[in-house]
Amino acid sequence: MSGVPDQAFAAWNAAQLARTEAALSRWVGPGAPEDLGQAMRYAVQGGGKRLRPLLVLAAREAVADEGALPGNAAMRAALDDAALRAACAVELIHAYSLVHDDMPCMDNDVLRRGKPTVHVQFGESGALLAGDALQALAFELLTPEHSAIPANVQAALCRQLARAAGAAGMAGGQAIDLASVGLQLDESQLRRMHQLKTGALLQASVMMGAACGTPGALALAGLARYGASLGLAFQVVDDILDVTQDSATLGKTAGKDAADAKPTYVSLLGLEPARQCAQNLHREALAGLDASGLPDTTWLAALADMVLLRSN
Amino acid sequence: MSGVPDQAFAAWNAAQLARTEAALSRWVGPGAPEDLGQAMRYAVQGGGKRLRPLLVLAAREAVADEGALPGNAAMRAALDDAALRAACAVELIHAYSLVHDDMPCMDNDVLRRGKPTVHVQFGESGALLAGDALQALAFELLTPEHSAIPANVQAALCRQLARAAGAAGMAGGQAIDLASVGLQLDESQLRRMHQLKTGALLQASVMMGAACGTPGALALAGLARYGASLGLAFQVVDDILDVTQDSATLGKTAGKDAADAKPTYVSLLGLEPARQCAQNLHREALAGLDASGLPDTTWLAALADMVLLRSN
Repeated sequence: MSGVPDQAFAAWNAAQLARTEAALSRWVGPGAPEDLGQAMRYAVQGGGKRLRPLLVLAAREAVADEGALPGNAAMRAALDDAALRAACAVELIHAYSLVHDDMPCMDNDVLRRGKPTVHVQFGESGALLAGDALQALAFELLTPEHSAIPANVQAALCRQLARAAGAAGMAGGQAIDLASVGLQLDESQLRRMHQLKTGALLQASVMMGAACGTPGALALAGLARYGASLGLAFQVVDDILDVTQDSATLGKTAGKDAADAKPTYVSLLGLEPARQCAQNLHREALAGLDASGLPDTTWLAALADMVLLRSN
Repeated sequence: MSGVPDQAFAAWNAAQLARTEAALSRWVGPGAPEDLGQAMRYAVQGGGKRLRPLLVLAAREAVADEGALPGNAAMRAALDDAALRAACAVELIHAYSLVHDDMPCMDNDVLRRGKPTVHVQFGESGALLAGDALQALAFELLTPEHSAIPANVQAALCRQLARAAGAAGMAGGQAIDLASVGLQLDESQLRRMHQLKTGALLQASVMMGAACGTPGALALAGLARYGASLGLAFQVVDDILDVTQDSATLGKTAGKDAADAKPTYVSLLGLEPARQCAQNLHREALAGLDASGLPDTTWLAALADMVLLRSN
């Protein structure tokens, strides 16, 4: 474990969650036709740990003092705004992917975070459109007009999010996942799938937070290493939880992977070796933070702990 | 009609189409897992008039000399590159919307441009993911790394595209369309739906071309008026064609709107008044070009003719 005091992290976490939830409430829905806006809000609300927004905001804090001009409060505020927008944007991409992933033609799941999934609540066409609109909104949030956020930061955030969400990222990983049902993948194929499907967006969360500052090459490399390890650890833990937790704890249908004959770290390595693998990735993530040379990576370290210790 | 010589426009059109098709071939597919890349290419290829890319490129030409520094060839080349990227990006958004719109839970259409639709060819999950990945790719194309395209142009293009594609644009229009089946809309409700569903992206195509230059406020206002009128004219003509053309000419299933009890300009106004409405919008589009004060809007005018005179 990273040694970050639980209480300090809980306070930071609660403060960041409050900011994120308030921003999502403000930004998701207005301007949409009523039904669509409701489905979009439903998809985003009441939802989960908000790990991706927390990663963005923690990474922004870690780089906030790197290369900054002392006393430039206006620029600092603009970059804080950029980070909050990035936090919400990655969450919208994550939320849309869950909406589409739950649809009957994909995983056909009716329960998510203990609630009926979006297509159960709003119909399949409503879910399809809500997902599409959430993806567009993510990029809209990153490019506010008449904003003090520098244009190069806006463009960099769009670039990173688009890559992580697209065919060489999350959508690509989903496609490999679909094509892999019933196949015997080896560990490197499984790793590749997860690096795309969940790892790319988690790593992008870290790097988008870093893009709201001016860290040097060493810091960027360390953060990229942290993000890649954490992203993979997340999936390994997810696979472990799928076999060790019940549906009520998970807030979604447990045992789905086995029922769907999907390859997982547990089916491939066995339960104990999968746990060991998650521990190793956790250590590697913390080593990335060390290597970054950044003076204060407290919250990023605590988030790595959270990923490993989570029960859903 | 605008008086642009047919032959000159045909040559310009062919040259822009060749650039656009080559760029789409280069940019769509690489980096994607094989199945997904195939579905993405299939969705984009062999497709239609490419009206939206042509609008982007024509608008870029119309503003290319506005406020430009004479002799700055490198910047001119960068902005030409930005316009080509924008042309492809709007086409990707259009293509993804067709893929999702054709799915069984939406219009359930099996024929598009004379070919089986994407979900028929690649399965529903393949179509869902290909659409999602095409949307992400649109924003990736607009934000190339290590590019001479100014960051403020990259950000402006993302902003305009995201708005036009999202809940206050295309996706919102689709939602209203779905909610309107079997209802009696009045003309202003129908116009609102189409302004969002097809008009927003067509107008954005014009404005994104304009964003690849530095036109003044007067020129922007004229182009916005052109784009809004053209966008609506396009839909009125679409409704007319749905009742006057057969499936072979359209390359998609004719008479769908009536069969689906969807409100259209023809069902609302009658065929002849709908034709008159399209003519009026065409005149309004050309009036917008006049009001822009831009010295050469030849190709934009010819594209307005094309929208009015098209048979599919």
